[in-house]
Amino acid sequence: MHHLYNFKTMKLWNERKLNKEIEDFTVGKDYILDQNLLKYDCLGSIAHARMLGKIGILKKKEVQKLVKELNNIIEIDREGKFKIKKEEEDCHTAIENYLTKKLGEMGKKIHTGRSRNDQSLTALRLYFKDELKEIEKLTQKLIEEIKRFIKKYGKTEIPGYTHYRKAMPSTIEIWAEALSESMADNLKLLNFTLELIDQSPLGSVVGYGVPLKLEREYTAKLLGFKKVQKNPLYAQNSRGKFESTIIHTLSQIMFDLNKISSDLILFTMPEFGYFELPSEFCTGSSIMPQKKNLDMLEILKGNYYLICGFEFQVKSLISNLISGYSRDFQLTKEPIMKSFEITKDSLSVAKLLFENLKVNTEKCKKGLTEEIYATEEIYKLVKKGIPFREAYRKISEEYA
Amino acid sequence: MHHLYNFKTMKLWNERKLNKEIEDFTVGKDYILDQNLLKYDCLGSIAHARMLGKIGILKKKEVQKLVKELNNIIEIDREGKFKIKKEEEDCHTAIENYLTKKLGEMGKKIHTGRSRNDQSLTALRLYFKDELKEIEKLTQKLIEEIKRFIKKYGKTEIPGYTHYRKAMPSTIEIWAEALSESMADNLKLLNFTLELIDQSPLGSVVGYGVPLKLEREYTAKLLGFKKVQKNPLYAQNSRGKFESTIIHTLSQIMFDLNKISSDLILFTMPEFGYFELPSEFCTGSSIMPQKKNLDMLEILKGNYYLICGFEFQVKSLISNLISGYSRDFQLTKEPIMKSFEITKDSLSVAKLLFENLKVNTEKCKKGLTEEIYATEEIYKLVKKGIPFREAYRKISEEYA
Amino acid sequence: MHHLYNFKTMKLWNERKLNKEIEDFTVGKDYILDQNLLKYDCLGSIAHARMLGKIGILKKKEVQKLVKELNNIIEIDREGKFKIKKEEEDCHTAIENYLTKKLGEMGKKIHTGRSRNDQSLTALRLYFKDELKEIEKLTQKLIEEIKRFIKKYGKTEIPGYTHYRKAMPSTIEIWAEALSESMADNLKLLNFTLELIDQSPLGSVVGYGVPLKLEREYTAKLLGFKKVQKNPLYAQNSRGKFESTIIHTLSQIMFDLNKISSDLILFTMPEFGYFELPSEFCTGSSIMPQKKNLDMLEILKGNYYLICGFEFQVKSLISNLISGYSRDFQLTKEPIMKSFEITKDSLSVAKLLFENLKVNTEKCKKGLTEEIYATEEIYKLVKKGIPFREAYRKISEEYA
Amino acid sequence: MHHLYNFKTMKLWNERKLNKEIEDFTVGKDYILDQNLLKYDCLGSIAHARMLGKIGILKKKEVQKLVKELNNIIEIDREGKFKIKKEEEDCHTAIENYLTKKLGEMGKKIHTGRSRNDQSLTALRLYFKDELKEIEKLTQKLIEEIKRFIKKYGKTEIPGYTHYRKAMPSTIEIWAEALSESMADNLKLLNFTLELIDQSPLGSVVGYGVPLKLEREYTAKLLGFKKVQKNPLYAQNSRGKFESTIIHTLSQIMFDLNKISSDLILFTMPEFGYFELPSEFCTGSSIMPQKKNLDMLEILKGNYYLICGFEFQVKSLISNLISGYSRDFQLTKEPIMKSFEITKDSLSVAKLLFENLKVNTEKCKKGLTEEIYATEEIYKLVKKGIPFREAYRKISEEYA
Repeated sequence: MHHLYNFKTMKLWNERKLNKEIEDFTVGKDYILDQNLLKYDCLGSIAHARMLGKIGILKKKEVQKLVKELNNIIEIDREGKFKIKKEEEDCHTAIENYLTKKLGEMGKKIHTGRSRNDQSLTALRLYFKDELKEIEKLTQKLIEEIKRFIKKYGKTEIPGYTHYRKAMPSTIEIWAEALSESMADNLKLLNFTLELIDQSPLGSVVGYGVPLKLEREYTAKLLGFKKVQKNPLYAQNSRGKFESTIIHTLSQIMFDLNKISSDLILFTMPEFGYFELPSEFCTGSSIMPQKKNLDMLEILKGNYYLICGFEFQVKSLISNLISGYSRDFQLTKEPIMKSFEITKDSLSVAKLLFENLKVNTEKCKKGLTEEIYATEEIYKLVKKGIPFREAYRKISEEYA
Repeated sequence: MHHLYNFKTMKLWNERKLNKEIEDFTVGKDYILDQNLLKYDCLGSIAHARMLGKIGILKKKEVQKLVKELNNIIEIDREGKFKIKKEEEDCHTAIENYLTKKLGEMGKKIHTGRSRNDQSLTALRLYFKDELKEIEKLTQKLIEEIKRFIKKYGKTEIPGYTHYRKAMPSTIEIWAEALSESMADNLKLLNFTLELIDQSPLGSVVGYGVPLKLEREYTAKLLGFKKVQKNPLYAQNSRGKFESTIIHTLSQIMFDLNKISSDLILFTMPEFGYFELPSEFCTGSSIMPQKKNLDMLEILKGNYYLICGFEFQVKSLISNLISGYSRDFQLTKEPIMKSFEITKDSLSVAKLLFENLKVNTEKCKKGLTEEIYATEEIYKLVKKGIPFREAYRKISEEYA
Repeated sequence: MHHLYNFKTMKLWNERKLNKEIEDFTVGKDYILDQNLLKYDCLGSIAHARMLGKIGILKKKEVQKLVKELNNIIEIDREGKFKIKKEEEDCHTAIENYLTKKLGEMGKKIHTGRSRNDQSLTALRLYFKDELKEIEKLTQKLIEEIKRFIKKYGKTEIPGYTHYRKAMPSTIEIWAEALSESMADNLKLLNFTLELIDQSPLGSVVGYGVPLKLEREYTAKLLGFKKVQKNPLYAQNSRGKFESTIIHTLSQIMFDLNKISSDLILFTMPEFGYFELPSEFCTGSSIMPQKKNLDMLEILKGNYYLICGFEFQVKSLISNLISGYSRDFQLTKEPIMKSFEITKDSLSVAKLLFENLKVNTEKCKKGLTEEIYATEEIYKLVKKGIPFREAYRKISEEYA
Repeated sequence: MHHLYNFKTMKLWNERKLNKEIEDFTVGKDYILDQNLLKYDCLGSIAHARMLGKIGILKKKEVQKLVKELNNIIEIDREGKFKIKKEEEDCHTAIENYLTKKLGEMGKKIHTGRSRNDQSLTALRLYFKDELKEIEKLTQKLIEEIKRFIKKYGKTEIPGYTHYRKAMPSTIEIWAEALSESMADNLKLLNFTLELIDQSPLGSVVGYGVPLKLEREYTAKLLGFKKVQKNPLYAQNSRGKFESTIIHTLSQIMFDLNKISSDLILFTMPEFGYFELPSEFCTGSSIMPQKKNLDMLEILKGNYYLICGFEFQVKSLISNLISGYSRDFQLTKEPIMKSFEITKDSLSVAKLLFENLKVNTEKCKKGLTEEIYATEEIYKLVKKGIPFREAYRKISEEYA
C-alpha cells in the first residue's frame, strides 16, 4: 500500500523534485546534526499527539499507537540504529516517514496543528535544557574538585603576580578559590539561562498560530516546560537569540578555563615550577626527547576562542533579517552543538586536571623573593603613623 | 609647602620620568574616558575614608575633611568643571592630587589600604550599576510605548512572512507583541546581570589583599553593594569578564532593535506600505528629490554590530592572560562605555519611533492576498476529518 | 621483527603512555581532518627523502623504496582506503607507521632532519595552494556565467535602489557587472594570497633549524614552491597568520555572494518579481502549500557569517602567544578546512544560480515608476543653464 | 542676498525639518570624523570642478574661483580652523555651504553631476591611500630598526621555545629576523591593498550614473588614481568591502606586534631576563614600590584585538544588505579611522622599542641549559649512521 509515498525521498513539504545540487547545499549537515535531536523530537511529538487526542483531532487509540511507535524510535535511537537519510533532510521527516510506514493514515495526521518550525524549536529547546543541565553538573563537580585541591595545598604560599611581574605574596587558596568563586557565578548564569529558555514554543507553528484550538499549556506541561512562549512570532524570533545567550554562558565557563590554563602553562615552566602535572598528561616531541609539553592546557585554552567564534557566527547569522523564520537559522545548529560538546569535554578535562595537579612547595618558597614583601614594609611604617604616600616613597628608594 | 609634589605631573605610582611617547601611548584616552568615573571614584573614596576612620588609620576629623573635599569634587564635576589632565593619567591621580593640594598630609593618607586596581574596579562597578539601571528604565519605557501602539493598531490584520515570503495572516498585535515579549525577557537578563556584578571589589587591592584589617563588608554596605566579592584575585579576574556579560546583555536589546528595524525598512517600502513614519523622520538625497530615506532605521539596525564588535574586543582582550591585573584590561573601558552610550541612544530613538509609527490599514488589507489563506483551507478539510497530509496535498494542487 | 613497535598505538614522539582522556582531548578531530592532508604529507615526504638522498643521509636505494611506498599511500588514499587511526593521532604518524611496517629501518630514517612541525606546515601549505587554485577556477567560471547572463538580459532596465528605496533607473547589466567586477578584484586578492603563502617551510624543523646541512632550496623546488621561507621561526609564526589571510580572502568572495543573495531574496518577492528562479530551486513548507521559498539563497547568504566566524577563531587562537609552535595552532585546522569547503560549495551553487536566473521584463518595466526619473528632470533643467541646486529645488517641490 | 539659505542649518539634501533627536542620532559623530576628510573632499571637488569646466558645465572663470576657494579651505583646515558644525552633518555640506557663501550661484553648481555618495567615497579613498602610505613608511622604518638591532645583538645565543618550553638553541638573529621577514610580507600585503583600492569612484554618483557625459578618466587622473572604478554600482558595493581588506591588512601588522610583545613580556620577566628595557619605559605601582611593569607592551599587544573587533564590525555592518548605498555604511567610518590611528601609534612605539631594547647576554647564556642540546646529541648519533628513530630512543632514555 502507501502507493502515494516513496519512503526514500519523501519530504514533509514537497513531492515535487528539487535540483540535486540545491538540495545537497541547503540540507548541508542538518541530517547528521539532527541525530542529536531525534529523542527530543519524539518527545515533542508524543506531547503533540496527546494534545491532539485531548482536543479530538486524534482518537484515543490513534494516540496510543503513535506514542508507542514514537517510543520505539527513541529506543532504536538509544541503540544507535535510527539513521536519518540525507534525502530525508532532517529528523522531523525521518520520524514522520517511519510513522506513516508503520501506521499509515495515522502517521499522516500527526503533523496537524504544527509546522516543522515549531517542531524544530521544541526539539532544540528540550535538547538545550538537557545539555545545560549536564554542564551544570560538570561545573559543580569541577568546583568540588577545586575545593579538594585547596584542602590539600591551600596553605602553601606562592608569589602573586600583576602585569606578569611578582607583586605580593599570595597562597594557593587565593589562586584556586578565585576560580571556584568565578565558577560559582557561572553556575548562576547557567541557571538564569536555563530558566530564560524554559518556554514552550510548541503550537507557535510558523509564527502566526493555526486555525485550531491548540492547548499549548497542556503540551508545555507534558514536556516539563516552565511556561508557554506565548507570542508565536517571538517563538520564531528567539531562534538564534536564545542560542546566543547560551553560547555566551558557555563562553564564561571557557574563559575561566582559559585563564587557569594560562596560569598553569606559565607556572609549570621549569623556570617557575610552582605546579606539576604527571607525565601521562604530557605529550612529547618527535625530535626533542627532553620535551614534556602540556598540549592539553593549550587545547583547553584555545577552546575558548572556538566558543567565541561560534557566538559571533550565531549573533551575525540571525541579524538584518525580518521577523519570522528564515533558513539562515539552520546554520546556527552546528555552532551551538559544537559549543556544548567543547564545553563538556573541557569541563571534564579540567576536573581531571585538578585531580592530578601538584604543588611543588619548595619551588613556591624559592619564588617568594624578597622584593615581594616591599608593600608589607610600607605598611609597617604606616602602622607607625607615617602617611602612606611617604612610607611608599621611603621604601621605593630601596628599589630605585 | 608640598615641595615634594609637582601637581602638574605627579602620578600615583611614580616620581621617576616616563618616556613621553610611551606615556602618551599607554595613557591613551584613559584620561578622557575617566571623566565618566569621577563621581564614582569619589564615592568609592568616601566609603574608603570612612572605613579607614573606623579602623583607626584616619582620625575622625581627617575623615570629615576628606569626605567634604570629595563631595566638592563631585559638585565641581557635576558642573562639568573638573577636568582630568593628560599628565594625571586617570581619575584616581587627579582626585588624589586635588586632595593633597587641599589637605596636604591627609591627602597622602587616603591611598592607605588600597591600590588603583581596586579603586578602578570599584568606580567601574558603581558606574556599570547606574548605567544598567538607566537602560532598564529606557527598556521599560519602550515596552510601555509598544503597548500604547498595540492599543491603537493591534487589531489590524497584516500578512505574516517566513523566508521573506507571505506565509499566513497575522496582526499588528502579534508583530509588536513579539518585540515587547522579547524586551521583557531582556529585562530579566538586565536584572540578572545587575545582580551578578553587584559585588564590592573594594579592599581586594591588587588581588592579594594587604596587611591591614580592612572592613570590606562595611565599605560594601556604604556603597550599596549587595555583597563583597570575597576572593581578592577573583575581583581582578572578573575585570573584563563582567564587562563581557554586560555587553552581551546589551547586544540582546540591540538585536531586537535590529529586527524591528529590518521589518520596518522593508514594510515602509512603497512596494508594501504597511507602515509609515512622518516626514521629519526621513532624510533626503542630495541629488534625488523624491527620496524619503529612513536613515534612522539603518543606523539603529547597524548599531547592533557595533555592540557585537565591542563584545568581541572585550572577550579577546582579556584572554590568554594569567591571573591578576594586566594593563590590557584598560582597553576594555572604551568598548564598554560606547556600548552603554549606543544602547541608551538606540532605546530612546526606538521609543520615539513607536510614538510616531503609523499603520496604513488600507495597504495592509491589500497585502492580504488570497494565497495567504491556503493553510486555512487545509484546516477546513482537516476539520471535516481528512488527514492533514492529504488535505495538504489536495490544496497544494491549486498552487502547483 | 619490529618487536619494539606496537603499530597500532605508536606515536612519533612517544612510547610512554598518555592518559586516555587527555589523549582524546588533545587529538580531537585531528585524525579525521588529516585525511585531507595525507596526499600532501606524502608529497612532502617524497621531497624530503630525495633531499636526504642528495645529502647522503639516505642511500639511493632507500630513497627509491621510500618514494615507491609513499606513492603507494597516495594511491591507496585516492581510493579512499588509507584511514588514519585515532591512536595514530595524525597523518604524519600514520604514514611513518606504514613505512616502518613496510620498510623497517628505512622507515625509521625518514624523520631525520625534520619535525612534525615543519612536516605539518608543508602539507598544509601544499593543501592551501591546491584549494586556492580550485577556488580561483570556480570564481572564473562564475564570472563567465555572469557574463553569459548579461548577454541575455543586460539591456533590461530595472529600478536602482539606495536605502532600500527606488533611486534612479538602472539596468541588469549594471547590477550583474557590479558583481563580476567585484569578483574580478577577488581574483586579484586570491592571486596575491596564493603568492604570499607560496613559501616552503620544509626544513624549518621546530623553528630553530637542525644540525644537518639540509638543502631547503632543493625540496622547495621539488614541491613547486616559489621560494623558501628562509627564517625557520617565521615559518612557525606564520602558522595561523597565513590562514587568517586566506580566510579573509574567502570572506571577500562570500561577501559578494551575500550581497547578490540579499538582492535576489528581495527582488524575487512577488511584491517585486524582477527576477525568477525555476521551481526546482524552491523549497516548500510543511504546512503552507503555496510557499516557494528560496532557502538556497538564505544558506548562501548565511555562509558568509560562518566564514567570518572562522576568521575570528583563527585570528584570536594565534594571539597572545610567544614565538614558536604551540598546540593551540592545531585548532586552526578545522576553521580553515571548513572555510574552503563552504566557499567551494557556495561558488558552485552561485554559478548554477546564474545559469537558471531569469529576468521578468514585464515586472521590471512596472517597477520603473515615474518618481525614479526625478533626477533626470533636474538634469534637463541643468542643461538649460539652471544651477544644479536651484533645479533640484524646483523639482523637489513636486515631491514635497 | 542668498535669502534662501540659512547657512547654519542648510543640508545638501533638504530644506524641510528633521526631528532633532533623529538628526542627532543619524549624524552621530560623523561631523567630527569628517574633519579627517576635509582636505580630501576639497581635492575631490577641485578635480570635479575642473572636469565640469572641461565638459562645459562650468565656465573657466567659475572653475578658477571654485578651485581658489577650495584651496583656501584646505589652508584653513591645515591651520585647524575649519570646523564642521553638527548641523552641517558632514564635510560635504560644510564645504558646499562655505562655497555658496563665498561664491553664490557658483557654489550651487559644484554639486552638478555627483552625489554625496560618490563624493564621500572619493574623499575616503584618497584618505585611505595616504594613511596606507604612511603605514608603509612606518613599517619600513621598523624593519630598518630591527636590522640595526640584529647587527648589535644578532649573534647572541638564546633558548628557542615551543609549547612555552625550551626546545633547541636559537639566536637573537633568528628571533628578530622572524619579525622582520614577517613585516616584509606585511609590506607586500600593504602594497597589494593600496593597489586594490586605487580606483576612482568619482562619477559613480549614487551607483547608477547620471544623465551627463562625465569624464571619469579625467578626474581619476587629476586625483592620481591608477584607474576608474568602472561599474558605478560596484563603486557603492565596495564601500566597507575595501575597508574590511584594509583593516585585515592592518591586523596582520598588529598580529606581529602582538607576538613580539608576548615574547618580550615573558622574556623580560626576572625569571628569564633575556631582554631588558630602560626604566623610563616602565610604569610603577601605586602600592608596590618594587614594580617595573611594561604596560606599553601590554597595550601594544592588546591593540591587536581592537583592530580585529573593528574588522568584525565592518564585515558584519555591510552584509545582509541589497546593492546600493545604505546609511549603515556610515558606521564603518569610525572603526576604519581608529584602526589607522592605532596601527600608526603602535608601529611608532614598536620602533622606539627596538631602539631601546637590550639583550642581557649573561642571562641568555644561563638560559641555555643542558637539555636544550638533546636534539644535537641525537644528530651526533645519526651522523654515525644510526637511524634517526633509534638515536631518538637512545637519547630519550636520559630524559625519561
